[in-house]
Amino acid sequence: MIAAGASTPQIFFEDIEIGSELWSSEFALTADAIRAFAEQWDPMPAHMDDDIDNLTASGTHLLAIKNRLLHDFPMAQTVTASFGFDEVRFLQPGRPGDILRLRLRWLDKRTSKSKPGRGIARHQCELVREDGTVLLSLFDTILIARRSGGE
Amino acid sequence: MIAAGASTPQIFFEDIEIGSELWSSEFALTADAIRAFAEQWDPMPAHMDDDIDNLTASGTHLLAIKNRLLHDFPMAQTVTASFGFDEVRFLQPGRPGDILRLRLRWLDKRTSKSKPGRGIARHQCELVREDGTVLLSLFDTILIARRSGGE
Repeated sequence: MIAAGASTPQIFFEDIEIGSELWSSEFALTADAIRAFAEQWDPMPAHMDDDIDNLTASGTHLLAIKNRLLHDFPMAQTVTASFGFDEVRFLQPGRPGDILRLRLRWLDKRTSKSKPGRGIARHQCELVREDGTVLLSLFDTILIARRSGGE
Repeated sequence: MIAAGASTPQIFFEDIEIGSELWSSEFALTADAIRAFAEQWDPMPAHMDDDIDNLTASGTHLLAIKNRLLHDFPMAQTVTASFGFDEVRFLQPGRPGDILRLRLRWLDKRTSKSKPGRGIARHQCELVREDGTVLLSLFDTILIARRSGGE
């Protein structure tokens, strides 16, 4: 995991190019990790199955992996809030052995009227398996700092 | 946490009363748990702050708590899938010391045309603090078994 430190050049509102894509590093999903997450947060039989062929990851686990991979993109210092997610879709189950990457697509952005130093940007996040299958898709609307500080 | 076992009477499609509410047990949010979750899944400065007065929980942490409290309602054997979440809203931050409960409201239901033994139901989930403030709200659409098996 890359936790963006204060010294990492950050993505500001001005750096966002609508239509552009970012790809994260890889995340390897294991049977042990699927069961451990489920035991703590989502103890459904399907997410704790002893039979590895029947085991699927909790959708909340996929959301957590999405969030962790998001930190590959250095915005931890500039993004101050998420207004929320829309159209969160669990399209295919995550399974042991899956290698996942996050694809982020910038959809639109506008400056904030109430917060002059900030902008509002929307992106689509997709958790994508090695074979190109999308497991999770959602839209996120964030509040992000302007490089100019709105001056 | 109540992990519904096979012996717990389950909620079936027929048991869902539109407009009715379910309240979960309490979940106590602690500073240590906020930092531990953030370290693994969402290492934003605001979610790992040493100063307890500035510390806020990751939105993904709230989603995980929502999921855990959902298991107070015995549907683990009957709900086989979530189509996805809509209008996920992070309305107020979670903070150390918060006592949270989940409120579930059944909104609508219909039998499935393609899956005769199942029904599709939609509910709103809200994570509510002791003082009544809603921290998280979302709509979930689930596939749930019919008691009759569609006969």
